[in-house]
Amino acid sequence: MSPIFNVAVLLYKDADIIDFAGPTEIYTNRPATGERPFKTTTFSLDNPVSVGHGVLTLIPDASFQDVQANLNNFDILMVPGGMPDQILEMLKREEGKAITKLLNDFASLPPRKETGHRIIQSVCTGALVLAASGILKGRTVTTHHMAYDLMKQMADEAAGGESNTNVISKRWVDAGLTDAGVRIVNAGGVTSGIDTSLHITEMLVGKEAADWAAEVSEFEKRGQDEAWGSA
Amino acid sequence: MSPIFNVAVLLYKDADIIDFAGPTEIYTNRPATGERPFKTTTFSLDNPVSVGHGVLTLIPDASFQDVQANLNNFDILMVPGGMPDQILEMLKREEGKAITKLLNDFASLPPRKETGHRIIQSVCTGALVLAASGILKGRTVTTHHMAYDLMKQMADEAAGGESNTNVISKRWVDAGLTDAGVRIVNAGGVTSGIDTSLHITEMLVGKEAADWAAEVSEFEKRGQDEAWGSA
Repeated sequence: MSPIFNVAVLLYKDADIIDFAGPTEIYTNRPATGERPFKTTTFSLDNPVSVGHGVLTLIPDASFQDVQANLNNFDILMVPGGMPDQILEMLKREEGKAITKLLNDFASLPPRKETGHRIIQSVCTGALVLAASGILKGRTVTTHHMAYDLMKQMADEAAGGESNTNVISKRWVDAGLTDAGVRIVNAGGVTSGIDTSLHITEMLVGKEAADWAAEVSEFEKRGQDEAWGSA
Repeated sequence: MSPIFNVAVLLYKDADIIDFAGPTEIYTNRPATGERPFKTTTFSLDNPVSVGHGVLTLIPDASFQDVQANLNNFDILMVPGGMPDQILEMLKREEGKAITKLLNDFASLPPRKETGHRIIQSVCTGALVLAASGILKGRTVTTHHMAYDLMKQMADEAAGGESNTNVISKRWVDAGLTDAGVRIVNAGGVTSGIDTSLHITEMLVGKEAADWAAEVSEFEKRGQDEAWGSA
């Protein structure tokens, strides 16, 4: 039996809807034959948690503390984005400190024994949270096309100087492995998160499963070089 | 001041996530200048309501009864899809009868006085619910590319014979106006709902607002002729 990949989906006030809903839907896909390869767990410091500027109200599957305590059981930690101003505000609060600690803890774990994988997946301006955590130092990364400069600035601030973080215009970027072996994957804006979940599906489960998920979603998977405006 | 378009977003057990989350996100978009043109209200017979096969749990903004009682205040009624088997089961229950009644009531309303519009927007297999309601008789329509035959069959069943419903392969279809003047817009599968919300944004607010929403979402709007597989 293939292993099940456990995905922890971070939710926070005013997180962008498609940022987490797009990837989450791809991970719920059941192949034409067989069981679902992914199991998602939404979690948050808030319960309920209001996202998309009050548009949806969710009850998370788990508390933030539960996920923090069981971090080792997750293959993927997904971080959605939101409005940059609100992310900057959040990062100043205790909530921001808890999230950046969680990211650093996850980035320091070895690949999960049961699957051989460990991935941090940011969508859109979720990459700003990664930048603030200091885990993007020396990496080539991307984010929403309106947040490139801010992301570079935040990575430099986290590094206390030049971070050598190179923010480029891509649909998504595989930003490589941490020292512990955790892969960092950054999506560009909003719907680009769907592309990264298809990419991760292909990497972990196979091309057939990824193609099926795209077909069921009537979504034409876009390559990482097809940045916004270049298509 | 431009009018605000009120969108009622139907949720039900195991509704597909992107089906409602994609369009809802487009409707939350704030233009570069000015206020949000749309206000969404999620509603359901369940509270909380579990969608996407247990993947997300939501607290709806309003009860089904509230929306039924205030139907006249809504410009758009959005109906997401789900797995065909589950939709067929739902339609047999009291829930299904309540939803098809709601659809018929909405289809019989005149355009909303404040805006001059009234639209039923189905996404994916949400069109099956419209078919079962009998409001697709004599129309050219679409749905998820794996549900064309089922949709025709359901429209015929609702008509008690040949419905003259023509199910075609399109990214989305404008299926025309009801006698009362309610426009019916059907999206194809899953992510095609994003295209219809961009189309409706363009129709109600203007091309600039629709282009901005697409840019912010890093989504290349697809024309109605770009059905799945034809792109």
